[in-house]
Amino acid sequence: MSDSVRRIQVRSCEIGGPELVVMAGPCAIESRAQIFQAAEVVAASGARFLRGGAFKVRTSPTAFQGLGWDGWALLREAADAFGLLTVSEILNEDQIDRARRYVDLAQIGSRNMQNIPLLKALGRSRMPVLLKRGFGCTIDEWVHGAEYILAEGNQDVVMCERGIRTFETATRFTLDVAAVPIAKKRLGLPVIVDPSHAAGQRDWVESLTLSGVACGGDGLLIETHPNPAEAKSDGPQAVVLGEFGALMEKARRVAEAVGRSIPVGAPLAVAVSR
Amino acid sequence: MSDSVRRIQVRSCEIGGPELVVMAGPCAIESRAQIFQAAEVVAASGARFLRGGAFKVRTSPTAFQGLGWDGWALLREAADAFGLLTVSEILNEDQIDRARRYVDLAQIGSRNMQNIPLLKALGRSRMPVLLKRGFGCTIDEWVHGAEYILAEGNQDVVMCERGIRTFETATRFTLDVAAVPIAKKRLGLPVIVDPSHAAGQRDWVESLTLSGVACGGDGLLIETHPNPAEAKSDGPQAVVLGEFGALMEKARRVAEAVGRSIPVGAPLAVAVSR
Amino acid sequence: MSDSVRRIQVRSCEIGGPELVVMAGPCAIESRAQIFQAAEVVAASGARFLRGGAFKVRTSPTAFQGLGWDGWALLREAADAFGLLTVSEILNEDQIDRARRYVDLAQIGSRNMQNIPLLKALGRSRMPVLLKRGFGCTIDEWVHGAEYILAEGNQDVVMCERGIRTFETATRFTLDVAAVPIAKKRLGLPVIVDPSHAAGQRDWVESLTLSGVACGGDGLLIETHPNPAEAKSDGPQAVVLGEFGALMEKARRVAEAVGRSIPVGAPLAVAVSR
Amino acid sequence: MSDSVRRIQVRSCEIGGPELVVMAGPCAIESRAQIFQAAEVVAASGARFLRGGAFKVRTSPTAFQGLGWDGWALLREAADAFGLLTVSEILNEDQIDRARRYVDLAQIGSRNMQNIPLLKALGRSRMPVLLKRGFGCTIDEWVHGAEYILAEGNQDVVMCERGIRTFETATRFTLDVAAVPIAKKRLGLPVIVDPSHAAGQRDWVESLTLSGVACGGDGLLIETHPNPAEAKSDGPQAVVLGEFGALMEKARRVAEAVGRSIPVGAPLAVAVSR
Repeated sequence: MSDSVRRIQVRSCEIGGPELVVMAGPCAIESRAQIFQAAEVVAASGARFLRGGAFKVRTSPTAFQGLGWDGWALLREAADAFGLLTVSEILNEDQIDRARRYVDLAQIGSRNMQNIPLLKALGRSRMPVLLKRGFGCTIDEWVHGAEYILAEGNQDVVMCERGIRTFETATRFTLDVAAVPIAKKRLGLPVIVDPSHAAGQRDWVESLTLSGVACGGDGLLIETHPNPAEAKSDGPQAVVLGEFGALMEKARRVAEAVGRSIPVGAPLAVAVSR
Repeated sequence: MSDSVRRIQVRSCEIGGPELVVMAGPCAIESRAQIFQAAEVVAASGARFLRGGAFKVRTSPTAFQGLGWDGWALLREAADAFGLLTVSEILNEDQIDRARRYVDLAQIGSRNMQNIPLLKALGRSRMPVLLKRGFGCTIDEWVHGAEYILAEGNQDVVMCERGIRTFETATRFTLDVAAVPIAKKRLGLPVIVDPSHAAGQRDWVESLTLSGVACGGDGLLIETHPNPAEAKSDGPQAVVLGEFGALMEKARRVAEAVGRSIPVGAPLAVAVSR
Repeated sequence: MSDSVRRIQVRSCEIGGPELVVMAGPCAIESRAQIFQAAEVVAASGARFLRGGAFKVRTSPTAFQGLGWDGWALLREAADAFGLLTVSEILNEDQIDRARRYVDLAQIGSRNMQNIPLLKALGRSRMPVLLKRGFGCTIDEWVHGAEYILAEGNQDVVMCERGIRTFETATRFTLDVAAVPIAKKRLGLPVIVDPSHAAGQRDWVESLTLSGVACGGDGLLIETHPNPAEAKSDGPQAVVLGEFGALMEKARRVAEAVGRSIPVGAPLAVAVSR
Repeated sequence: MSDSVRRIQVRSCEIGGPELVVMAGPCAIESRAQIFQAAEVVAASGARFLRGGAFKVRTSPTAFQGLGWDGWALLREAADAFGLLTVSEILNEDQIDRARRYVDLAQIGSRNMQNIPLLKALGRSRMPVLLKRGFGCTIDEWVHGAEYILAEGNQDVVMCERGIRTFETATRFTLDVAAVPIAKKRLGLPVIVDPSHAAGQRDWVESLTLSGVACGGDGLLIETHPNPAEAKSDGPQAVVLGEFGALMEKARRVAEAVGRSIPVGAPLAVAVSR
């Protein structure tokens, strides 16, 4: 875990340094009110990135598919209002150019980890990329996925462990904490942890968050929603926004125990006034 | 297994009827000689489709990536010479229009089973589609993948079970034979079986082929190569071309035992003269 | 599949020869009527062994645990009445001596595949053993399990593939058909297939049965019950007794297609009079 | 994670209270020198239990099977010399009575988690039991395993998560950190974590240890060996004894971050003089 990794600069934020980078927000951007509420609270709790999907990859064609470009505009606006950066999933090459305005860190989702044309296109784009691990993919395949991006000349790749598919059904996926130090050692790139998709249920998000920090994760990607019961996507795994600050406080203590830190956010009132 | 399924017509060939449809050929198209040799033998053994990849999705960016459009031109030529149809993987939307000339059945590969823009684009294209199961995906997700294509108005979807990722390492994947009747029942679409990727090693391809027929598969997708030791991709799992006819003979007997058939191919000499 | 295996003689029955050996009956012996009904029908359909558990390994302590010694007495009686042999699970060393009277083929269940004292004790006992694969165990571990028995001097070991645990939940386990030829090659011992536990639901038992024959299985172990809806254990996966003969007829045709056979049973009336 | 659990008293040691209980030592007891060295160091680093196997469940019959009763005598002696308690695996019912002299906490190994006669026998014995999770078993089955012991009247059950079998091969097993809070909530019993078997390689033991503490584990079970290169069993995953203290120091900091503690061991010289 003391292996040093390449530090990735995304605008004002460095990923892979002593400070853990927290990315948080709803699974899907649903409305102006929802994304602004989320932005305010996660900024106040120490997050540096606002997450939110606009083009959703849903298992079923009848599920909510996201607000599209309007969603990204809201994400940008909310992030800017609270001094946050943005991370969001890009689904295909055609979106990349226009996405630059809205998305600071381009996420390649778990289902696209082996979508080679997309990996290459983001490699050529030179946008900083967050490469989630395919839930059915080995660490070795995940590393090769990153190599497709690196081979195009883009070195700004952040990896994200989000759980793999196993026989266990008590959680949605099984978080593979060992993948964090292994991928860091193999690639020399930062690795962050998504406890939300692994847990699948908010009751277990705290344990997975703290494990993700303890195992050497360079950041966290967490779903939080003002009202998870009404969420259009992945509500059961979203941390209630009102409890997000307390979760970050616990994560901060573990981060310090392993020689890292998580910044304290701006107080809510101050954040609002920005 | 007696469930009736929608019969899919691909040019002169019906998939889902009493006759099992065999698709065979090399993993990747490598040369004119290689693909013509393969076409001749598989046609003579009762196959209706010539398979061969031109744009390969390889785990690593340093592996052979295929001959591209030149490969597809060779595939078409070889197939036409021996009265075969073609099946090949399409990687992205931009390829579809031009692909129609070369590819009769558009394969969506295992790694792209949840590439939603690609599913939708092939749905809109109305090309007949072969949807391979994602190796990390449940039957339920596979069915939903098909629904993305069907929802765009394209009903010509053939499913392909090709093994899932499990803890067992003696084979490359674990062929899920139960997925065949389950997917047939849920979708009412034909399901074929790829024993090659599941086996990962030619020693076990015969057992998986015969199981794939016995469980109710509507066809087979098999890798065969004139000289597997020299293959640029997946050589270890390719059946030696010289042994392909004997394998088909065994498959034919099992097909008849379950009330189906596999056509006898044209004798080699006749095939060549076509 | 043409690999020759050691033929194991269990009383009058040879396992591993050209004839497939069918073992069938209820999961648990529940009553005299139930086991006699099952015995009559399976004998009439070509089975050589009557199966039935008396000491059940149930996941939960509140589930039905079996009739114990009384169950074995009924199993013996019913088998003898219809000219069948018996196969039943033995749970610990202390049962072995007394079990000889009742059990012709001592089954080591999936959960006990790595119970080393039990493997050794059955090795020393010289009873013919049926070693089921642990549902969480690799083929390699299963082979080593057999070696524990062989190392004690007992060469009469029959292997049984019954499905492994994977992420797929549409079936109870995933039948690993490739394990059949692989284990046969590695050990030179017969391997039979249990489609019932893999399927977990009777709808898929037929497909798995036929696949188990096609892949080179040397026999079948199938659960069947006169009234599955009332079964005290594993009812959903039991073939209705009245449909067992038809299933065997289909299996027989596939067996013949791969150069094997399944004996035709004695007509019901004759069987009863024995 | 703040769920309170039943505190289990094993002689002078309480498991499930605010203090994490560390159990450490070699996989197998190999010699007097080895186990004494291990005992001295782990006691000095804050461990309360000395672990070491005398009757080993090895996958292959040709692997080292342990020193048997002589091993247990050495374990007892070494533990007593340094004020430690003992934890060791019991393989069958016949060992229980005599084992009481040597073993304070009776471990049921992963391969025996569904060995019902053993679960019941240890339930009747009233020995405190450490129930490792079967590597192929769900949390639900693990909970039912505990219920077999509880149902016999023995409430002194400690659970141990040690990794499950998945498709990932970079580690030996995949540590399921979510299983810790889930099992604690379902059973109200303490759950400890074994990072060694999950990692399979010492490089990743530190990350898994710290994750195991962060996720709410009530203790740790760690393999450490004076000279892992010479170990007769599981050497690659053993922490070098000389590095064990530093690992505990890191674990202590994470424990404190989550409101728990790990005792500081007696200085080496003092420990020796006890």
